[in-house]
Amino acid sequence: MRILFLGDIVGRTGRDGVLSRLSGLRTQLGLDLVVVNAENASHGFGLSPAIATTLLQSGVDVITLGNHAWDRRDLIGHIDGEPRIIRPLNYPPATPGQGSVVVALADGRKALVVNVMGRLFMDPLDDPFRCTNELLGKHRMGATVHAIVVDIHAEATSEKWAFGHMLDGRVSLVVGTHTHTPTADHRILAAGTAFQTDAGMCGDYNSVIGMTKEPAVARFVRKMPGERLQPSEGEATICGIMVETDDATGLARRLAPLRQGGLLAQTLPDF
Amino acid sequence: MRILFLGDIVGRTGRDGVLSRLSGLRTQLGLDLVVVNAENASHGFGLSPAIATTLLQSGVDVITLGNHAWDRRDLIGHIDGEPRIIRPLNYPPATPGQGSVVVALADGRKALVVNVMGRLFMDPLDDPFRCTNELLGKHRMGATVHAIVVDIHAEATSEKWAFGHMLDGRVSLVVGTHTHTPTADHRILAAGTAFQTDAGMCGDYNSVIGMTKEPAVARFVRKMPGERLQPSEGEATICGIMVETDDATGLARRLAPLRQGGLLAQTLPDF
Amino acid sequence: MRILFLGDIVGRTGRDGVLSRLSGLRTQLGLDLVVVNAENASHGFGLSPAIATTLLQSGVDVITLGNHAWDRRDLIGHIDGEPRIIRPLNYPPATPGQGSVVVALADGRKALVVNVMGRLFMDPLDDPFRCTNELLGKHRMGATVHAIVVDIHAEATSEKWAFGHMLDGRVSLVVGTHTHTPTADHRILAAGTAFQTDAGMCGDYNSVIGMTKEPAVARFVRKMPGERLQPSEGEATICGIMVETDDATGLARRLAPLRQGGLLAQTLPDF
Amino acid sequence: MRILFLGDIVGRTGRDGVLSRLSGLRTQLGLDLVVVNAENASHGFGLSPAIATTLLQSGVDVITLGNHAWDRRDLIGHIDGEPRIIRPLNYPPATPGQGSVVVALADGRKALVVNVMGRLFMDPLDDPFRCTNELLGKHRMGATVHAIVVDIHAEATSEKWAFGHMLDGRVSLVVGTHTHTPTADHRILAAGTAFQTDAGMCGDYNSVIGMTKEPAVARFVRKMPGERLQPSEGEATICGIMVETDDATGLARRLAPLRQGGLLAQTLPDF
Ligand SMILES: [Fe+2]
Ligand SMILES: [Fe+2]
Ligand SMILES: [Fe+2]
Ligand SMILES: [Fe+2]
Ligand SMILES: [Fe+2]
Ligand SMILES: [Fe+2]
Ligand SMILES: [Fe+2]
Ligand SMILES: [Fe+2]
Repeated sequence: MRILFLGDIVGRTGRDGVLSRLSGLRTQLGLDLVVVNAENASHGFGLSPAIATTLLQSGVDVITLGNHAWDRRDLIGHIDGEPRIIRPLNYPPATPGQGSVVVALADGRKALVVNVMGRLFMDPLDDPFRCTNELLGKHRMGATVHAIVVDIHAEATSEKWAFGHMLDGRVSLVVGTHTHTPTADHRILAAGTAFQTDAGMCGDYNSVIGMTKEPAVARFVRKMPGERLQPSEGEATICGIMVETDDATGLARRLAPLRQGGLLAQTLPDF
Repeated sequence: MRILFLGDIVGRTGRDGVLSRLSGLRTQLGLDLVVVNAENASHGFGLSPAIATTLLQSGVDVITLGNHAWDRRDLIGHIDGEPRIIRPLNYPPATPGQGSVVVALADGRKALVVNVMGRLFMDPLDDPFRCTNELLGKHRMGATVHAIVVDIHAEATSEKWAFGHMLDGRVSLVVGTHTHTPTADHRILAAGTAFQTDAGMCGDYNSVIGMTKEPAVARFVRKMPGERLQPSEGEATICGIMVETDDATGLARRLAPLRQGGLLAQTLPDF
Repeated sequence: MRILFLGDIVGRTGRDGVLSRLSGLRTQLGLDLVVVNAENASHGFGLSPAIATTLLQSGVDVITLGNHAWDRRDLIGHIDGEPRIIRPLNYPPATPGQGSVVVALADGRKALVVNVMGRLFMDPLDDPFRCTNELLGKHRMGATVHAIVVDIHAEATSEKWAFGHMLDGRVSLVVGTHTHTPTADHRILAAGTAFQTDAGMCGDYNSVIGMTKEPAVARFVRKMPGERLQPSEGEATICGIMVETDDATGLARRLAPLRQGGLLAQTLPDF
Repeated sequence: MRILFLGDIVGRTGRDGVLSRLSGLRTQLGLDLVVVNAENASHGFGLSPAIATTLLQSGVDVITLGNHAWDRRDLIGHIDGEPRIIRPLNYPPATPGQGSVVVALADGRKALVVNVMGRLFMDPLDDPFRCTNELLGKHRMGATVHAIVVDIHAEATSEKWAFGHMLDGRVSLVVGTHTHTPTADHRILAAGTAFQTDAGMCGDYNSVIGMTKEPAVARFVRKMPGERLQPSEGEATICGIMVETDDATGLARRLAPLRQGGLLAQTLPDF
């Protein structure tokens, strides 16, 4: 299976970057499954139902979220009706939405996509390691599904690496989000799981993690309430990772980063 | 000036990776200045005077540190006698050592190297933004020095990006350390400063940020005291960033990541 | 039921303060149940099996713990054999020991004692609110037990107050520990549960939360490794709260703080 | 000098509790100086200029603040014109307002009042220990002023105790605020400084640190955006500490807590 995962879409420029390229990329790269994190798609904070619908109609198969999941409150009433939008698995039991979804490709193959949140330097949720283990007890690659993609939305690199190793051999891809900075450490772990600490954001990198520079810098220098943070509107770099998996085992055969548009060094998978 | 910065050296394998390659790289890349972060060089925790001396005799011009600066207490009595080892600038006034150093190249050109620590999700130190601004009031590129390199040892990507933009146009390179994960966002900022959120570690990536996997994973899953963390001893990838600056302005002309050895995708500057 | 709860015992002076008074207090105050938090009883860090045994032989009915539960590793092998020592309920499933215990008084009445840990500004554990609710689903005052005492070991006052209100009417006493500082806000909540944000420590208050002053102050002023923290050895104030409950409902009829010995203003329940 | 310090005023009920009693208390207790923390006086968040003026006209001599200093943005333009309102000393240099004030009593005696913020589990500001030491280099009890009162607005008990010991013998009173919970550990430290870890709030204790219970509990149990937090409007307990100092030395002769109104155990200084 050929899978593309794109990191946190930030604001209009991030959406434009993704929407303008997605159809072409699906064809050019022969993609079977596209997953995007869209927790910052609506003006930097949350995801509106309308934008979610646009993404899902434009070639996105599954949308993941994170700590900004509920910034747009209208998503709360929408998420239960749209299983292709998932929120972190380790929210408490009564939370709207689901933390995972099994999607069927056009050809009938199936993929499980999971979204989970780290706890180090973040809000205390249920244990992401245990929750994910429990969920994976119900799914097995090569048996119930052909591939498993896990978006670990977390701050600390140590937690993300540890999480990747814990799942190594049981899922196709563990990819981090939340730091809005793509890492150059994409690799296939010892037992065959593709891994990247952070996919990076889809947004304007002439910014502070996607938001305009001046107010964001001021928050560190002055300890006063300042201007509201706004998405920076320069051309986005869309950032993510592509993985090709073996349908028999679900494990990764090849992976490569993708960075297109905007200020970052450009790269496109060559397989 | 041709500058190479390498991120946190972790344990013996990290040291071996750096020491075995440094002389060759100096020649091959025509390096004028080599700076390494070595806060984890001594078995993962701190830097012994003996290892510092070896690094400085093997082609390293300046060593930077971080939150592990004093893990090896014998460095405390050593650092005041060795100005080429610098510790974060924003420690309190009476702290041993210095937070910056001006080094003279063989040809007489001069470079200022600065080490400073972030505060978000870290121990509260003096304001890194203000401390660095004050220091830079005493140095100017193209006048007192030919280049300025700043190692911002910090956890949060937002703080590192904000820090980079604050210094944009006034220094040659702002490069992050501490997360032990190289980022793929190296770029030249709007006013000419080279930037990378994190250089990545020089260590074994089949690990949890350089330490053996099992005890590190166990710390997240079980909340019990476990085995002592030990550096993972597989072959290191040495990770860093190379910058070529304009001696007249100190600003960056070109930059490229360097990743050699071990598990990560290999890359070498081509200029 | 007449219940005395004493907060974190810190070091030898804390133990001496408790052990020298406990027998007298049991008689004088007509105590039916004595619960103490002893997470710092062994030289400030953890609880040795020997000290636990001494406390349990000297009039303590149940010992609670906290984030220092495993500082003395010999307790790990001991705790499963001694149900009167409980550790926080919201540790992960495979953790040694139990988070609650039902003890029978000499006259046959029964009390449930629970220990649970907060998460705000602390290590991320399982949700203390949900864990405690689940446990309380199996016990009811006036039916299965005559009284329920809950030690919420937590940093933030907001979390402790919220926890108290959530349990109001379902338990006899919610008392906080961990800050080593007695609060003056003991009261009976709206639905009949006795509450105090923190019981305070049993230790020398001429100290920094029980540890000698100089090294503890130095840690805030200098950011260098310093002397090891040691318990301060001046005379202890033993601090706690006494509650009288209605055996038919388990709810609190009266409560009063207890502070004896050492530097704090002395007080003893007058009922 | 006879000094009363009252902790964080929360909302209307907190203001009413203070305003209705202050004139009587000044007379009854023979108060020379009244200091109140009012960071939550305006509907729980910040302090409006109008409420500040009312407090200052009703018997309050100095108002201190904390992390909510700028929640009411209209105070930003007001504070420089009203030196009797002070904000934390360890904000960065260009912050509006001052961190201390010298006030003259009707009889000509003078007192220095200082407000400073802790850093543990709080936003990283300048070092409160060093800032306060620097300020105290310019003032000496028995020489330039007759008394010095320091409000340390902080979360962690360890930081507050350490701060108190560092100042012991150099100021009249170190009193904590911010936790909204009065502590029962008021005492005179070894060298003569009166100390209390937290004065407690002036607000309705049938609440979660002053805010209505249900939404505050929900925030811990569910991880969803909820109702806006509102001040709880039951009768306030006004909480604080009274100190009598020796004008020749500035040191404390006597201290006693004050708790009047509402749900907490009532107490009034008897000297
Ligand atoms: Fe994000
Ligand atoms: Fe996020
Ligand atoms: Fe490091
Ligand atoms: Fe570090
Ligand atoms: Fe504790
Ligand atoms: Fe404790
Ligand atoms: Fe506060
Ligand atoms: Fe407050």
